[in-house]
Amino acid sequence: MDHDELNTKNPKPNHKVLRWQLGEKPASCDDEFAVEEPLEIRVDNHPISVTMRTPGHDAELAAGFLVTEGLIKKRSDVAKIEPYPRNKDKNVINVFLSPDVAVDFKQLTRHVFASSSCGLCGKATIESVHQHFPKIKSKISVAARTILGLPEKLRGAQKTFDRTGGLHAAGIFDSGGALIVLREDVGRHNAVDKVLGHGFLEDDFPFEKQILLVSGRASFEIMQKALAARIPIICAVSAPSSLAVEFARKSGQTLVGFLREGRMNVYAHPKRIKFD
Amino acid sequence: MDHDELNTKNPKPNHKVLRWQLGEKPASCDDEFAVEEPLEIRVDNHPISVTMRTPGHDAELAAGFLVTEGLIKKRSDVAKIEPYPRNKDKNVINVFLSPDVAVDFKQLTRHVFASSSCGLCGKATIESVHQHFPKIKSKISVAARTILGLPEKLRGAQKTFDRTGGLHAAGIFDSGGALIVLREDVGRHNAVDKVLGHGFLEDDFPFEKQILLVSGRASFEIMQKALAARIPIICAVSAPSSLAVEFARKSGQTLVGFLREGRMNVYAHPKRIKFD
Repeated sequence: MDHDELNTKNPKPNHKVLRWQLGEKPASCDDEFAVEEPLEIRVDNHPISVTMRTPGHDAELAAGFLVTEGLIKKRSDVAKIEPYPRNKDKNVINVFLSPDVAVDFKQLTRHVFASSSCGLCGKATIESVHQHFPKIKSKISVAARTILGLPEKLRGAQKTFDRTGGLHAAGIFDSGGALIVLREDVGRHNAVDKVLGHGFLEDDFPFEKQILLVSGRASFEIMQKALAARIPIICAVSAPSSLAVEFARKSGQTLVGFLREGRMNVYAHPKRIKFD
Repeated sequence: MDHDELNTKNPKPNHKVLRWQLGEKPASCDDEFAVEEPLEIRVDNHPISVTMRTPGHDAELAAGFLVTEGLIKKRSDVAKIEPYPRNKDKNVINVFLSPDVAVDFKQLTRHVFASSSCGLCGKATIESVHQHFPKIKSKISVAARTILGLPEKLRGAQKTFDRTGGLHAAGIFDSGGALIVLREDVGRHNAVDKVLGHGFLEDDFPFEKQILLVSGRASFEIMQKALAARIPIICAVSAPSSLAVEFARKSGQTLVGFLREGRMNVYAHPKRIKFD
């Protein structure tokens, strides 16, 4: 079975996934993805923050962000909010303040990780990561049945989770499905950093034959971290975002989502999974 | 019934919650919270990032973070990792690199929101927010039964969620339980910024008589955003973190967690909820 349609070289969005459940053959279906794209928020043309967001209601997002940063306090503090005209993807929004609102921009400036705002879009963001971390070419192969069993192993090893219900988990498994390390954290990205840091400090690195499983969703940030650690297969118990899928397809990463209840969806590079 | 024990003036950690389900009386119980505390990561004594994390395995977290930022590539790049000795809370960790690893610190520096690292701990973080946003004194009162009904109203209004399963939702309700605005996003904090920004742009602000409901967990960041918008009651379908609870108690915010299946836990200031 050829699943080349998941390894899109086509610039158009492609919402194909490979659905599989135990006892059945994998089938290609259309799916809907939660859209994730970067948004740069500017105040009077100064870039102050980049956030990964779902497009829509961007003026509200910018206004709410500035309220919660304590920068604006009343409606009249804002003169107008409009997209930056030179960004055709509408991923830059500009908040113009009333002349009587004083802002200390030095205090405000955050780390703007996608520096070229004229090209600020998912594609540019992915390309900027690929400048630092090359694509994955690992040829490992893992049985689909082995992958199905990972979430139960993760949960079995999670002691804190069952008591507080408030922690994200990340686990690294070998290609036979044995758990190497599990870490938990209130922050999903921190749980991933901890398992990667464990491998690094144990000198068991890079993770070219390992599998990463996260207890929640797969976002752009998780995929970027996995790429840096050279992990070929990334699994999530919940949904991946559109940018996570696009990132995985362009980075050569196998991406599995909705891995639960005896099922999985494969979003990118199913070639590393053996369906029996 | 007096629930003063939730409004702790006692500096010791207090894990009391008020549990309630329909048809029963609220009862005070002990609970375990997912611990959330800030961690400042330093490289050769330069602060480069502050993250909200669950304490433990901090050296792994720091190493993993630096790997995923592309700063270190092999075990020998790191000379040693140790807590910064002047921070008694162990919330500052220092990574010392090998002399042959070159770092451009200007490229790296992120926004360090808790600037005083000697006092870097949950308490200092909360106090620094209170310098900008005063405590909540709203005297509104909402029926417990009204609060129980909010998650169903949120889900009913969420169209995208059911299709992709990948979006966080935030909703603002009035004190009678009517939905004012719902927004969804791949980022929990973005969904909250959007509903707050909606109120701001509609000039329906501050939200002194409103209720905020989030579809997932309540973290420090969500509570800080709600405080900035002056929201007196914050509800989460899942668990709050330890720092969210501590923040709510010190900020005068009513905090409800695990709001689902006809039940709720109240973590702070239950005085605004009428149990019948």
